[in-house]
Parts: sequence; structure tokens; C-alpha cells
Amino acid sequence: MDRNRFEKQLEFILEVDKEKNILRQTHLSGYTRQENDAEHAWHMALMIYLLKEYANEEFDLAKAMAMALIHDIVEIDAGDTYCYDQTMLSSQKERESLAANRIFGLLPQDQKEHLMDLFYEFEKGESPEARFAKVMDNFQPLLLNDYNNGRDWVRNGIDKERVINRQKSSKLGSEEIWQYTKELIEKNAKKGNLKDNKIK
Amino acid sequence: MDRNRFEKQLEFILEVDKEKNILRQTHLSGYTRQENDAEHAWHMALMIYLLKEYANEEFDLAKAMAMALIHDIVEIDAGDTYCYDQTMLSSQKERESLAANRIFGLLPQDQKEHLMDLFYEFEKGESPEARFAKVMDNFQPLLLNDYNNGRDWVRNGIDKERVINRQKSSKLGSEEIWQYTKELIEKNAKKGNLKDNKIK
Repeated sequence: MDRNRFEKQLEFILEVDKEKNILRQTHLSGYTRQENDAEHAWHMALMIYLLKEYANEEFDLAKAMAMALIHDIVEIDAGDTYCYDQTMLSSQKERESLAANRIFGLLPQDQKEHLMDLFYEFEKGESPEARFAKVMDNFQPLLLNDYNNGRDWVRNGIDKERVINRQKSSKLGSEEIWQYTKELIEKNAKKGNLKDNKIK
Repeated sequence: MDRNRFEKQLEFILEVDKEKNILRQTHLSGYTRQENDAEHAWHMALMIYLLKEYANEEFDLAKAMAMALIHDIVEIDAGDTYCYDQTMLSSQKERESLAANRIFGLLPQDQKEHLMDLFYEFEKGESPEARFAKVMDNFQPLLLNDYNNGRDWVRNGIDKERVINRQKSSKLGSEEIWQYTKELIEKNAKKGNLKDNKIK
């Protein structure tokens, strides 16, 4: 064992423990409390494993799961950016780039480069793995929100069009889950959980 | 899409959200609060990905990560059994077997069987994947506990021998991490964080 290499890996592993403290807008089922990034990533990786039969393309399972596990690590420095917050969205890329360099930079060089590649591949949706992982990044909070009768959408006054815009990248990773997603959105619009743009 | 199949998968996915509420004995780095099972599983799966070079044997990465992600799901019904609580340990197997049947039983039959197989393979350490996933199940809380200056061991009055007994299965999955584990245990015994059996 290269002790110096191992200690760098352990430093990274302890640093990312902080991801358990980054709260998201989404609440757990039952609306007991906000979900954190580590819980979301766990759920996403498990969903990739269980729902892989619905992917549009063949993909490497371990790679897609690893992407899910690391995709929010930058939020340790950059914070969670709510997907409907335009002000925060404008500075998100720069904040996340600095964070990626610092946090992945704790690892040995080869693993730093590998995780940076995975992170940006996911962000850009540049591979079958990234496209399917992104479906789960969209679908996991949608499922919880639907289960909670849309309470997070109501609280934030979100309209249907914004949810569709946010979710539509799912079509690239899974046509079947995208069809189901549209049904869930329609159902929540009908129930009044999402403001309907046509009515405005 | 077989709609009935998909809805079973979603029912399972929503059910396991409850894993985020199962608290462990281990505290997060900084000792802010107890860790939950979903966070622990996320951390373990990521560690399998990052530390795979230290495994004694070649193994299937996606399979080992999936094992890590699901290994504590039974605790939704059976509760977390502290690894040094003898009374709870005696009934653990029966409680966990009932839980596995109910919770994995929400899935379509093929996936129920697959996840039951993964779960028991992990429990028994019957494959290279199980042996390496087990290393991380041992090592992840050890790292946090060491970082927190052994506070969980001190609080529960744990002695060195019990930690060695709990951790020694790591040798089967990674000789190198087992060597490092023994060093961490010795360090904590010297600091008085673990009661030293020789002194008693």
C-alpha cells in the first residue's frame, strides 16, 4: 500500500461526510423534514440499479451509479441551488467549478481527474450513463413530491411549465419514465398542486 | 412498459425512503448528530468505488455497490442492531428475515429474488463482492469514530477486543485495509478511547 495515496483517499472520504449536512428543497415521504444530498444520492443510485431496464441505451451500471453518488459533492462548498431559483442558478457554474477543484483535488491525481470527468459528463449529459443518471436526478424528487401531494411545489408557488422544463431532460435517458413523468405532472396540475399556465 | 411491474418498483422505492429515518450509533464527523442508514450506505458505496484497488480479489463493482446500497434496508422493520448489543444480536436474524421478505417482497418477483440473494450473500460474506462490501461496512464507521476521537466507543464503554472481533472480517476482503484498521484500533486504545483488555 502506498500510504500517502491511501491517506489522500481517506481525507477525501472524510471531507465528503459533510454532504450529509447539505439540505435540499425536497422533503422526505411524510414531509417530516428536508432531505439531504447524501440521502438523495443513495436513493438515486439504488433507482439506477432497479430501473435500468427503462433506459433508452445500454450503459455501464457501476459508472452511472458512481456518477449518482458524487454528483452533488460540489454542494459542500457551493450549496444546494434550488432548480427554480434564477438568481442562484446564474452563479451556479462558477461556484461549482471552484468546489470541484478543491474537493476532488483532495484525491490522488488520477482519481481527481476521473471524478472531475464523471462530474462534468453528468452535468453535460454527454454519455448514456449521464443521461440515465439524470433521469433519476429528476425522477427521485418528483416521486417524493408527488407522494407528499405536491407540498414543496405549493410552498414555492411552482407552475407546471417550470416543472416540465426541469424534467424534460429525462426524455433523453428514458422515454418510458418521461411518459410517466408527464402523467404525474398532469395529475398534480389537475389537483392544483402545480399552477397551470393555461389558466393564468 | 409493464405498468403493473413499474408500480411495484415504485412502491419499493418509496418504501425504502424510510431508511433515512433509521439512526445508527455512529455520529457524523464533528459529532453533530447520529448518522442514518441511507447516509451510511451512500458513504460505503462511494468507498467501494474509490478503494477498490485494495481488495484481495477481483470483484464486480456494480454488484458490490448495490449490496452496500441495500444491506441495511431490513432495518426499516427490524431496527438498527448495535454491533456490541448481545441481547439484540440474538434475535437479529429472525427479525431481519421477516423484514427482508416483506420489504423486498414489494418488488416484482425476479427483483425480489435478486435483492434477497444480494442481501444474504452480503450477510454470509459468500463472494468477493460481499467480502469487500463488508470491509466498508466495518471501515466507514471506524473512520468516523476515529475522527471523532473515539467518542462513540467511550460513550458505550467498548473495549479493544470487541472492536477487533467486530472488524476482523475485513481481513477476508482487504488485507491492506485490515492492517490499517489494526493500527487505528491500537492508536485509540493507547489514547484511552478503547478500554484495553490487558489492563483489566
